[in-house]
Amino acid sequence: MPHTLENYTLGRWAAGGNTPQELLDASTGEVIALANTEGFDFAAILDYGRRVGNPQLRRMTFHERGRMLKALAFHLQEKKEIFYELSYRSGATRADSWIDIEGGIGNLFANASLRRKFPDKPFYVEGEPVGLSKGGTFMAQHLLVPREGVAVHINAYNFPIWGMLEKIAVNLLAGMPAVVKPAVPSAYLTEAVVREIIASGILPEGALQLVVGSGQGLLDHVTYQDVVTFTGSASTGRKLRAHPRIIEEAVPFTMEADSLNAAVLGVDARPGTPEFDLFIKEIRKEMTAKCGQKCTAIRRAIVPEAYLEDVQIALGKALAQTTVGHPQAEGVRMGALAGRAQAEIFRERVRHLAKNTPIVYGNLEEVELLGKERGADYAKGAFTSPIVLRNDDPFKHLDSHEIEAFGPVVTLMPYRETEEAVTLANLGKGSLVCSLATNDPRTAQDLVMGTATHHGRILVLNGEMAKESTGHGSPLPQLIHGGPGRAGGGQEMGGIRGVEHFMQRVALQGSPSMITAITEVYQTGARQIERDKHPFQHYFEELEIGQTYTTHRHTVTEADITAFAQVSGDNFYAHVDATSLEGTLFTGRVAHGYYILSKAAGMFVDPRKGPVLLNYGLDECRFTKPVYPGMTIGVTLTVKEKVGQEKRDETDVAKGIVRWLVTVTDETAETVAVATILTMVKKKNQE
Amino acid sequence: MPHTLENYTLGRWAAGGNTPQELLDASTGEVIALANTEGFDFAAILDYGRRVGNPQLRRMTFHERGRMLKALAFHLQEKKEIFYELSYRSGATRADSWIDIEGGIGNLFANASLRRKFPDKPFYVEGEPVGLSKGGTFMAQHLLVPREGVAVHINAYNFPIWGMLEKIAVNLLAGMPAVVKPAVPSAYLTEAVVREIIASGILPEGALQLVVGSGQGLLDHVTYQDVVTFTGSASTGRKLRAHPRIIEEAVPFTMEADSLNAAVLGVDARPGTPEFDLFIKEIRKEMTAKCGQKCTAIRRAIVPEAYLEDVQIALGKALAQTTVGHPQAEGVRMGALAGRAQAEIFRERVRHLAKNTPIVYGNLEEVELLGKERGADYAKGAFTSPIVLRNDDPFKHLDSHEIEAFGPVVTLMPYRETEEAVTLANLGKGSLVCSLATNDPRTAQDLVMGTATHHGRILVLNGEMAKESTGHGSPLPQLIHGGPGRAGGGQEMGGIRGVEHFMQRVALQGSPSMITAITEVYQTGARQIERDKHPFQHYFEELEIGQTYTTHRHTVTEADITAFAQVSGDNFYAHVDATSLEGTLFTGRVAHGYYILSKAAGMFVDPRKGPVLLNYGLDECRFTKPVYPGMTIGVTLTVKEKVGQEKRDETDVAKGIVRWLVTVTDETAETVAVATILTMVKKKNQE
Repeated sequence: MPHTLENYTLGRWAAGGNTPQELLDASTGEVIALANTEGFDFAAILDYGRRVGNPQLRRMTFHERGRMLKALAFHLQEKKEIFYELSYRSGATRADSWIDIEGGIGNLFANASLRRKFPDKPFYVEGEPVGLSKGGTFMAQHLLVPREGVAVHINAYNFPIWGMLEKIAVNLLAGMPAVVKPAVPSAYLTEAVVREIIASGILPEGALQLVVGSGQGLLDHVTYQDVVTFTGSASTGRKLRAHPRIIEEAVPFTMEADSLNAAVLGVDARPGTPEFDLFIKEIRKEMTAKCGQKCTAIRRAIVPEAYLEDVQIALGKALAQTTVGHPQAEGVRMGALAGRAQAEIFRERVRHLAKNTPIVYGNLEEVELLGKERGADYAKGAFTSPIVLRNDDPFKHLDSHEIEAFGPVVTLMPYRETEEAVTLANLGKGSLVCSLATNDPRTAQDLVMGTATHHGRILVLNGEMAKESTGHGSPLPQLIHGGPGRAGGGQEMGGIRGVEHFMQRVALQGSPSMITAITEVYQTGARQIERDKHPFQHYFEELEIGQTYTTHRHTVTEADITAFAQVSGDNFYAHVDATSLEGTLFTGRVAHGYYILSKAAGMFVDPRKGPVLLNYGLDECRFTKPVYPGMTIGVTLTVKEKVGQEKRDETDVAKGIVRWLVTVTDETAETVAVATILTMVKKKNQE
Repeated sequence: MPHTLENYTLGRWAAGGNTPQELLDASTGEVIALANTEGFDFAAILDYGRRVGNPQLRRMTFHERGRMLKALAFHLQEKKEIFYELSYRSGATRADSWIDIEGGIGNLFANASLRRKFPDKPFYVEGEPVGLSKGGTFMAQHLLVPREGVAVHINAYNFPIWGMLEKIAVNLLAGMPAVVKPAVPSAYLTEAVVREIIASGILPEGALQLVVGSGQGLLDHVTYQDVVTFTGSASTGRKLRAHPRIIEEAVPFTMEADSLNAAVLGVDARPGTPEFDLFIKEIRKEMTAKCGQKCTAIRRAIVPEAYLEDVQIALGKALAQTTVGHPQAEGVRMGALAGRAQAEIFRERVRHLAKNTPIVYGNLEEVELLGKERGADYAKGAFTSPIVLRNDDPFKHLDSHEIEAFGPVVTLMPYRETEEAVTLANLGKGSLVCSLATNDPRTAQDLVMGTATHHGRILVLNGEMAKESTGHGSPLPQLIHGGPGRAGGGQEMGGIRGVEHFMQRVALQGSPSMITAITEVYQTGARQIERDKHPFQHYFEELEIGQTYTTHRHTVTEADITAFAQVSGDNFYAHVDATSLEGTLFTGRVAHGYYILSKAAGMFVDPRKGPVLLNYGLDECRFTKPVYPGMTIGVTLTVKEKVGQEKRDETDVAKGIVRWLVTVTDETAETVAVATILTMVKKKNQE
C-alpha cells in the first residue's frame, strides 16, 4: 500500500481528496506514493503566507534571517541519510543524489553567509548616495525592503530538493515567505525535506507551505506583492508567464527553462592537450550525471572539423565505462530517468533527431542493466543507454539546436572558424550555460564576447582550473542562474542579485539629515552631533550615527615631509627634490598622501585605552588637493555606519565594525583628503 | 494644408500610405499634422536596427558612447527653440515644455556623464570577483555585454521629447540601437527632434529609427535579443505584456504606467509649518504642471483628519491663482490637455468620481480662458479648470484609489494614525512615487518603511530641502523610475541600473589567469608578469595587466613604530605603551596600520621622476594580521586595471588612472595588509 503524501498549508499537514496521482519508482515501476491537492483553497494558502509568514520574516534583520538559514542547513545535514535513502527511488545514484541533497543544503549555507553582505537591519541601503543639488541640501539613496507577498515556486521534477532549497534560501534571506509546488513525479522527496524543516521549528509559522499535487488554480490568486518563479520546460513556462493574473498585476515572474546548452572545443585544444581531455570528461559527466536530466546539461558539442573523429572516438571510449542499472546496485554509474513517461518522451525525441543526425554511439532499444536482482527492469523502469548523435551539417539540420531530449544525449557538430562556433552556440536561441575548452586567452575572449549575449553562465575549461572546477552543470549560489530567450529570460541566485528579486527597490529623496535618519547611514551634509566625550571613548552601542569629532589644526612643514620620507622610505621625487618639479602637476615639494592620512589619524585618535580595539582598514580614500608646506590641516571624524559582529564563540569579545567618515580640510576649508575608515569597537554589553 | 510627418526607417525619411491620422492643436482644435505608417515593413525595420545599428554601437566603448550622447545633448540644446515653438501646440506652456525639452536633453547629459562609472571598454565587469575554490585556481566574475537586438520604445503622448530621450540615452550608452514609436497625438514633436538628431550625423546609421503612426504589428517581430519598453496607460501596457512574441521569446519588457500617486501630510506638519506650506505648493504644482498630465502627478492627498479643512482652504487659495488659457497668451499658468479626446475622457472620469466624492473646488463645465485672441476655444480645444475632490470615507469609497482621471485633479482624504496613512497610500496598489511632508524623522521612517513596498520613489518634503528639491513629479536619470503593480512593475533609469536592462549579464567561470585575460582586470592568483624596468618607469600604454614588482624586505623595529608615532602624532596606546595591552587583541606593541601602508609605499615606489604623476587615493585597504617588531615585511605591486582619462582640453596632459593591487606579506608569507592603490600615469602618446 503506497503512502499518501501530505500538503503542509495553513499551519498543518493534510492529504488531498479522492483522486490522487501515482508516483512511481524509476527503476522498478512500483507505485511508491500518492499525491493530491484536491479540496485545497489556494487563495487561503497564499493569504496565510502573506498574513502570517510575511510580517514575521520582514521584521527580522538580514543577520537573523541568515542565522536561521544556517541553523536549517545544519539540521537538514543531520537528516540527510533519510533523503539519500528515498532518492534512489527517483533513479538517482548516490552521486546524483549528492547534487540534489548536499547541493541544496549548500545553498542554505551560502545564503546564510550572504547575510554578511547586508546590514543587521530588515532593509538594505543599496548603492551610492546620489547628490541632487548644488547646495547639498537635496539628495537620494536607493533602498530595498522585503515585498509584502509570498514567493510561489513552481519546480521541476529533476531536482526535488535542490530545486526547493536554492529558491527558499533566497526568499527567506530577503524576508519573504514561500509556497512551494514541486513537480509531482518526485514530490515525495520535497515532502520529506519539508517534514524535517517544519518539525525543526526553525522557521516562523507561515514561512513555508507545500503543495504536493496539482497546482491548477494556484496562480489565479497571486498579486503584485507576490513573486512567481518557474523551473521546468519552456512550453509550460510560457503558459504561466502569460497567466492573466501575472499580466494583470505585473507580478514579477522568473523563469528558468532547460535549454540546448553547448560546449565548444577551442581550435588550440588538439587531441592530447589537457583541454581536449577535459572536454571529453565534461561531456561524459554532463550526459550521465542525473541520467542527463539537468537543465544545464551539454546537449551540443561544437568541435573543430579536424578533431571531430577524435572527439567521437574518445567520447565513445569514455561512455563505454558508463554502466547502467539500479542506482543501489554495485558498480552502477548511471541510474534511470525519472519515470517511464519521461523515458518515452526521451526516446521519441531522440528518434526524431536521429532522422537527420545519426546515432553514432548507444542504442535506443536496449541497454545492459546491472541490479536486476533489485528489480531493475528495462520495460517497467526508465533506463536508457547514453546516446551520441552526429550532425555534420549543423547550419542545415537545425533540430539539434531546437529539439531537446531530456536525458543522456549529446549531438556532435563540426565548425571551421571561431566565429562559426559562436554562431552555432547561439543557435540555441538562449541557453543557461556554455563551456569553452581552450587554453588560448585570445580564443577564449573571442568565444566569450561572442556567446555572452546568449548565455547566463560561461565556463572556460583549461588545465589550470581542472582540479578545482565545479563543472559545467553546476549552478552556484553566488552566480546567476538563468539565460535569455529559450532558457526563460530569468535570473536566479547570483548572491545579492537574487535577493533583490524578493524586495522592492525605492529611490528615497530628501535632505541629508532626513535620509540619514531613515537609512541609519550618515549622509554627507547631514547634521553632525558633537558630544562631550571623544567618540573613541564610547562603546559600540553608545555611538550615534552622525556623531562627530573635530580636531585641532596642524600647519604642515618641510620637516614633516622630510621626516615622513625617512620613516616610510618613500623618497618619491615630488616629496623630496624641490628641483625636480618642472613639467609636473605640483608647484612645490608636496606632502605624501599617506602623510596626510597618517597625520589625520594622529589628530583624530584618542590615545587612551578605550572601547576602540583596532584599526581594521579603510575604503574610498581620495587625495583631492595637494598639500604644501605652510598649509594648515584639520580633520572631522563622523560615525557613518555601525555593523554589529557575531561572536565566534562564548569567549569572544562582543564588538562591531564602525565606519567613520574622515574629512581633511585646509585653511581655506577646501577638502584635501577624504576617506572612510573602519575600526573595531567593543560593545558595552558583553553577553 | 497640414504637413505630413515622416517615418525615419532603414536609413531614410518617408511618409506612410493613404489613410493618415490627424494631429490636432490642443488649444484651437486645428489640424496641424498627419501621421501614417501604412505600408511600412516592421520586420525589416527591426532587422535593420539589429544588423546595421547594433554592431556599430556594441563595438564602441562606454566612454565613446557617452561622448556621443554629450555631443547630441549639445546639438539639441542649440536647436531647442524650434521645439519650444512647436510644443505650444500640444497645450503646453513654456514651463511645461521645459520639462519635456530640457528635461529630455538633461537626460542625455546625465547618461553621458554616467560613462565614468563604466570602463573604457565595450563591456562591463560587474561586482566583486567570486572565489570558487580553496586552492584559488577556480573563480568567477559577472560580466555585462550589450544585447544583440534593438530596443523598441512605445511612448506616451504627454512627454513626446523627454519620453524618447530618457530611454534612448540609456540604450545608446548600453550599446543598443532603438526604434521609437511615440504616441500619435504629439508625434510631431518627436519627429522634429529625430530630424535634428539624424541631421546632426552624430549617431551611427541604424542607431535610431522612428515610427510616427500606428505601431500595430511592430511587436510581432521582436525576438529574445530585443528589449521592449512601454510608457502609458496600465490597460494598454497589459495587452502588450501579454503579446505572444513577448511571451514566446521571453523578451525583456519594461512597463511604466500612470498610477494614483499619493502625497501624505505628516501629523507633525500642522498648518503654519514649512512642511504644510510645501505640501500645498507641491500639490498645486503637480495638478497644474503639464495640465496634470504626468504619470507621476499627485492624485491623492492624504491628510490628518484635523487638518483636512485647512488643506482644502489653502489649496483652493493656491489654485485660485492658476490662470488657464492658450499657452502662448500672457499670464497663463495652465494650458490645455493634449486634445479633445483626452479632455472628454478626463471629464467623464471626474464625473464618475464625483458621485461619491464631491467636487470641492473647480468646475467641469466651464473655465475662464485667457488668449481667446489666439484661438483658445473651450469647445474646440481641450481646456479644463483644476478640480479638487473630497473623499471623507476613503476606506469605503475606493474609486479614489482605482480610477485615474489624467488631468488637473486631486482627491483629498483624511487619516487618523500614521498606519492608516500607509494603508491608504498603498491602496493605489503600486504607484510611481509618494511624497511625505514631515519634519519628524520617526514619522518619516514609519511612513517610508510602510509605503516603500508600493512605490518606486519616495520624496520626503521638509524645510531643509525645499529650496533645492526637484519635486514630486520629476523622475531623475540617476534614480529608478517605475513602481510595482498598477505602475507596471518596471524600473527605468536609475543610473547603472537602467543601463543593465539593455545588456546581458553572464557569470564567467575559469582560472584567475583566464578571467584576467578575458576581463582585462587582474584577478588575485593570476599569473604575474615581471619585467625589466620598475613599473613606475612605464607609461600608461606600456603597463600590462598583471605586471608585478616585488620589493626588498624590511624587518620592523620598535624604533620604526616610535618614529612613526612621532611623525604622525598617533600615540594610540597599543602602539606606544607596552604596559597597556592586557585584555586587548594584541600580544605586544603593534605597528600602526598606516605605518605598514606608508612603509609599503616606501618599498614599492620608484623615487625617480617618471610617468607616474601622483598618488590619487586608495580603496579597500584591510589590515589582516598585526605586525610586531621583529617581523619582516615585503610587498608585491601588481597592475590591476587601467582606466584612460579624457583630456579636459588641448593643453591637458594625456593620462590615465592605474589601479594597483598591493599585498604586504610577512616572513611566513602570510598577508598582513592588502589595498588597491590608485596612481595617475602619463601616456606616452600625448596627442
